[in-house]
Amino acid sequence: MRMKTVRVGILGFGTVGAGVVEGLRRNGARIAERTGLNLEVGGIADLDLETDRGVEVDRALLTADAASLVDDPGIDVVAELIGGEGAARELTLRALKAGKPVVTANKALLAEHGKEIFDAVERAEAGLYFEAAVGGGIPILRALCGGLVGERVERMYGILNGTCNYILSRMESDRLSFEHVLAEAQRAGYAEAEPGLDVDGFDTAHKAVILAALAYGAPLPMDGIRVRGIRGIASGEIEYAAELGYRIKLLAIVRQRENGIELRVEPALVPRQHPLASVGGVFNAVAVEGDLTGETMYYGRGAGRYPTASAVIGDLVQAAGDRAAGAAPRPRISSSRSLDLLPAGDAPLRCYLRLALIDRPGVLAKVAEVLGAHGISIASVLQKERREGEYAPVIVLTHKARESRYEAAVEAIRSLEVVGEDIVRLAIEDFDD
Amino acid sequence: MRMKTVRVGILGFGTVGAGVVEGLRRNGARIAERTGLNLEVGGIADLDLETDRGVEVDRALLTADAASLVDDPGIDVVAELIGGEGAARELTLRALKAGKPVVTANKALLAEHGKEIFDAVERAEAGLYFEAAVGGGIPILRALCGGLVGERVERMYGILNGTCNYILSRMESDRLSFEHVLAEAQRAGYAEAEPGLDVDGFDTAHKAVILAALAYGAPLPMDGIRVRGIRGIASGEIEYAAELGYRIKLLAIVRQRENGIELRVEPALVPRQHPLASVGGVFNAVAVEGDLTGETMYYGRGAGRYPTASAVIGDLVQAAGDRAAGAAPRPRISSSRSLDLLPAGDAPLRCYLRLALIDRPGVLAKVAEVLGAHGISIASVLQKERREGEYAPVIVLTHKARESRYEAAVEAIRSLEVVGEDIVRLAIEDFDD
Repeated sequence: MRMKTVRVGILGFGTVGAGVVEGLRRNGARIAERTGLNLEVGGIADLDLETDRGVEVDRALLTADAASLVDDPGIDVVAELIGGEGAARELTLRALKAGKPVVTANKALLAEHGKEIFDAVERAEAGLYFEAAVGGGIPILRALCGGLVGERVERMYGILNGTCNYILSRMESDRLSFEHVLAEAQRAGYAEAEPGLDVDGFDTAHKAVILAALAYGAPLPMDGIRVRGIRGIASGEIEYAAELGYRIKLLAIVRQRENGIELRVEPALVPRQHPLASVGGVFNAVAVEGDLTGETMYYGRGAGRYPTASAVIGDLVQAAGDRAAGAAPRPRISSSRSLDLLPAGDAPLRCYLRLALIDRPGVLAKVAEVLGAHGISIASVLQKERREGEYAPVIVLTHKARESRYEAAVEAIRSLEVVGEDIVRLAIEDFDD
Repeated sequence: MRMKTVRVGILGFGTVGAGVVEGLRRNGARIAERTGLNLEVGGIADLDLETDRGVEVDRALLTADAASLVDDPGIDVVAELIGGEGAARELTLRALKAGKPVVTANKALLAEHGKEIFDAVERAEAGLYFEAAVGGGIPILRALCGGLVGERVERMYGILNGTCNYILSRMESDRLSFEHVLAEAQRAGYAEAEPGLDVDGFDTAHKAVILAALAYGAPLPMDGIRVRGIRGIASGEIEYAAELGYRIKLLAIVRQRENGIELRVEPALVPRQHPLASVGGVFNAVAVEGDLTGETMYYGRGAGRYPTASAVIGDLVQAAGDRAAGAAPRPRISSSRSLDLLPAGDAPLRCYLRLALIDRPGVLAKVAEVLGAHGISIASVLQKERREGEYAPVIVLTHKARESRYEAAVEAIRSLEVVGEDIVRLAIEDFDD
């Protein structure tokens, strides 16, 4: 096999950048033997050139001038591992403009600036590779673009944020509160000091937008997407859900509906026997339902130095191979196409409602009447022993109804005198329609 | 995007062939829009041109002369969907020799004639694509060649035969015997009249050999691989395993050991909390452990008209794209390299032993003594109430020992007067070392 050397410019020498350098050092010879591509680190740009990243590196490769590294004619492929939407955006556009393929792990950039970025990709005829942006080391984007390219994707369900899944798993296994587990995770460095991007669901939403773009061939706008996080989840909810045969997971839900694409991020009840329910701890998983194969599922570590570096290296090999062959990557995301997003509130769904009812005859009937008046019918009711004061927790599982109806119904129920203020509503995903 | 038409010659108009024709009819326009590749059926060869396959097809495309279809200069890519090792082998070699890429679902051909086939691929510089040969609609081969190409694959565990997994799942859920479920599955058409290829583990072994070839870059010989099927599994075993926290699955196990590659197919005890244990019914799954990402898992339908057709179509897109770009597929399987297979019996493993012991003091000590003399130590013992006659079932779980030691130890135990003839030995896979 004729060997081809491809020189990689690495932008950002943080956790992932150092992981890529170390991964190439360890497995570069193996990759060359397998693929005929010799991936060589041609330069590493970072503002901080002093901190020891714990990996061996020739200091002559380091530079603080990222733009010059991108422009260097000796650099064939650029790996953008800076993150954020500032320098990362400018350098990505700069590289594409220069006709250089870019590998990136930057989900926020792709989700928030998708139109601009994919427009630049189309004009540049250079490839953009971003397996590392979703699901860390799980090759889910390749599955969508490659093995499943012959499928019409009907729906996707993703557990896409390891921090949230870890928190929910610990809350269940050790019966702890959200606040307790979060504080602990922050002390251990598993959760950010500013955890909002994770626990409020936005990181999951970024990844969901990227999955949808690949499945449907066009970028989606972030606004208009219903995003709920896990801050409001009480450990009691997790216990009630368990009693009913469910587990609570923060899900990204992407569905091809008749009138557009449904895309929402929210904590939802998943049947315990569904494979997604058994995804625990920091693991991620994506279930894809296509019209030909039905359900396939992809599972693994969604973050971390080496899982993310592995995805970046896989993309570097692909980018290098495409470049060596003069091939553009397929399929593409077309920035000129636009997808209709189903308006938030239009999706039909089953819900879990936890109410606090005064323990008196006829009270449940009143609630059922209000739900019925909003077109929501009850599938089952679980009434618990009274826990505190005069209110007893009652859990109502509903049949399908449009989400907007629940909002109105919950408002109306809240105004009943026999109901406590605290009403919890969570989606139920049964995967059966 | 410039559209490129690629004409496909389909060899074999059976279940999968008809599925590919129907899949392209349904989703061809979508694929063209996404990839710029217009996949056109240029001809369909089958000996039987009369049977209605339930799909619309222009009769002018049908021919009984497969060799001429392969030779037809209007055919760009060949899909070999005949199966078996006769005509399929000849036509595949013929197409490769003519420089035409071949897409195939034929695991037996690849596993039994790997050296010859991959040698032809290397000489031809035309690609061979075989995602459909393993795991049906699950894009596991692309994961190994693509997203995970930067990893050193430490081990793989596969549930690769839907028939076996269905039988084991039904045996557990409905407490039925192997024979009962098999007969039922045969009547319903889920199992072949000649079920040996499936239930004796050879289909699983074929797929395991292909997975190993992709992970390690060279074909492996089928002989020298330890293959055990599920015929010997009694429903009692499934119950005892459950009591001990395990489920029995027919596993393909591929491991990079210091002295070579361990490859075995056998029914094994899997901890119930491991994701592989929850793979039920006809579903397949492969867990891959790499040095960078750790464990990833891939799950879906491993067989059937449309799942297999989906994999074939994905490969047709890839083959067409590679051909359009003049690129050879990477990475390759090198027929000139050879891999060392760990001799059967050398793998260290934990075992489940079910013995029938006379219910008398000191008997278990004798068994322990024999095991100890063979270097096998006991991890735990479960003694059951006597079920029949004078023997009581006793289950012994062992610590790790080389497999060959178990064979000698079981022989020695069998010769003890206090032990019944019927000794069951199954591997335990804990995934924790």
